[in-house]
Amino acid sequence: MTTAADPRPAVTVLGLGAMGQALAGAFLKAGHPTTVWNRSPGKGEDLVSLGATRAATPAEAVRAGEVVVVCVLDYAAGDAILDQVTAADLDGRLLVNLTSDTPERAREAAARAAALGVDYLDGAVMVPVPMIGTPDALIFHSGARAAYEKYEGTLKALGGRSAYVGEDHGLAAVYDLSALDFFWTAMHGLVHGFALAATEGVPGAAVAPYMKTLAALLASVVDGTAEDLDAGKFPGDLDNLTVEAANVRHIVRAAEHRGLDATALRGVLTAADRSIGLGHGGDNWASIVEGIRRPA
Amino acid sequence: MTTAADPRPAVTVLGLGAMGQALAGAFLKAGHPTTVWNRSPGKGEDLVSLGATRAATPAEAVRAGEVVVVCVLDYAAGDAILDQVTAADLDGRLLVNLTSDTPERAREAAARAAALGVDYLDGAVMVPVPMIGTPDALIFHSGARAAYEKYEGTLKALGGRSAYVGEDHGLAAVYDLSALDFFWTAMHGLVHGFALAATEGVPGAAVAPYMKTLAALLASVVDGTAEDLDAGKFPGDLDNLTVEAANVRHIVRAAEHRGLDATALRGVLTAADRSIGLGHGGDNWASIVEGIRRPA
Repeated sequence: MTTAADPRPAVTVLGLGAMGQALAGAFLKAGHPTTVWNRSPGKGEDLVSLGATRAATPAEAVRAGEVVVVCVLDYAAGDAILDQVTAADLDGRLLVNLTSDTPERAREAAARAAALGVDYLDGAVMVPVPMIGTPDALIFHSGARAAYEKYEGTLKALGGRSAYVGEDHGLAAVYDLSALDFFWTAMHGLVHGFALAATEGVPGAAVAPYMKTLAALLASVVDGTAEDLDAGKFPGDLDNLTVEAANVRHIVRAAEHRGLDATALRGVLTAADRSIGLGHGGDNWASIVEGIRRPA
Repeated sequence: MTTAADPRPAVTVLGLGAMGQALAGAFLKAGHPTTVWNRSPGKGEDLVSLGATRAATPAEAVRAGEVVVVCVLDYAAGDAILDQVTAADLDGRLLVNLTSDTPERAREAAARAAALGVDYLDGAVMVPVPMIGTPDALIFHSGARAAYEKYEGTLKALGGRSAYVGEDHGLAAVYDLSALDFFWTAMHGLVHGFALAATEGVPGAAVAPYMKTLAALLASVVDGTAEDLDAGKFPGDLDNLTVEAANVRHIVRAAEHRGLDATALRGVLTAADRSIGLGHGGDNWASIVEGIRRPA
């Protein structure tokens, strides 16, 4: 084990699925002494040939690293690993769990780490495997602030945009859920829009430049939308929900008329109509939040 | 009426709602002799003070402009205006309808324009009123190609990103529907993601930087998604729908557990599950199109 003064602390990666392998590979590339372990054998041969040390047991793996990263399928798998190590094995280490789950599970895991007396960060990886180790890769971390600050350089070897979002260990999962809620809904809309164009013989390649224009427009309205939501005020001077809901209804009908499923967009319309019913017809788009907060 | 050689042809705007006024204002700012008309009186005083000429009738208005832009509530309102003009009034003009509706309505309007012997473009304005006349404003046009090319400079006074998308008069509406399908679905996801963070006490301002990161990620996957859809091939080497659907299910549960409506995201999940049922579980996200194409 290296000292904290070493610019490249020894690290351990537990779990060698595609993501775990990418994490270990990024640590190796950044020059960290790296120990790996996987429940089933036969994984990580490439990492060993690149200089990683394979540990025989979780306890041996944990003792070898100053920063111990867990990246397994779910928290139950993470718990099964921790069952095989002692507080003594973990003493002085920073435990970082990059297994995505709910805020509740993250807080339970933090309570267990606290019982073991180990510093704990809960993290959420926001990018696909090929982006791990790149300057643009975003990973959220929450929990032990002093430990994050001490090892920030090490953790940024995994993703240049790593971000610490707060002391509450559940926060990384909250940011993860919130951002991916937006992302997957939008990714559905993207494919749906392309599918609608295709019904009229228009290829995706023809529409793509305009989809990019609208993605840029989305980025440009993020801050204003956040401000309105935080203030709970939805000034309708530039746009209003009644006109926008009519537009959405129009798209739903056009899609269904062409034989496409429009269940998701109908859900958008239902939330908008509920907000309008609550008196927000003259307010801007962000007021759809009132419909979202009042399920049918 | 000016000649075609004039760099700033005379224009007419029929309909002085907020959008019509913005269009006329942009024409005036670009130096076009501009005539305006509105069904009900009392609108457009500002435009007249800026130099616009107010016509007493649609026929008078149409005769004054070389390019005649119609921007009214719907096609029925546009038809009611055309009922008041003759083929002789329209002779030699380019008629541009910026009233958004379906491709079918646009084609019907084109048939009527053809019967009147007038060149016709159907257009769709993709930006809010305050952006009209700016270099970034996107307006789709479809129909009479030669007429578009002749008056492209005039039409770009309304929006610097004006784009001609094809001879079929319905195409502007197709591009409009397709792009706004993406946009409004994504805008719902954005507010929903913020609402989810708010249930855990995280303000929009804290999450906003990451929402912008994801909007940029969206923009970066547009071309690849279009290519996969155009090819009908969804290679699952970097991501797969089974893992992504599990992620979406996880977000749906987290949102509903916190009392939020998740109907739209449930619709996304339903389409994903249908695609997986059709054998696309190992394919990438774009394969959700197969579920979209097969409504329940």
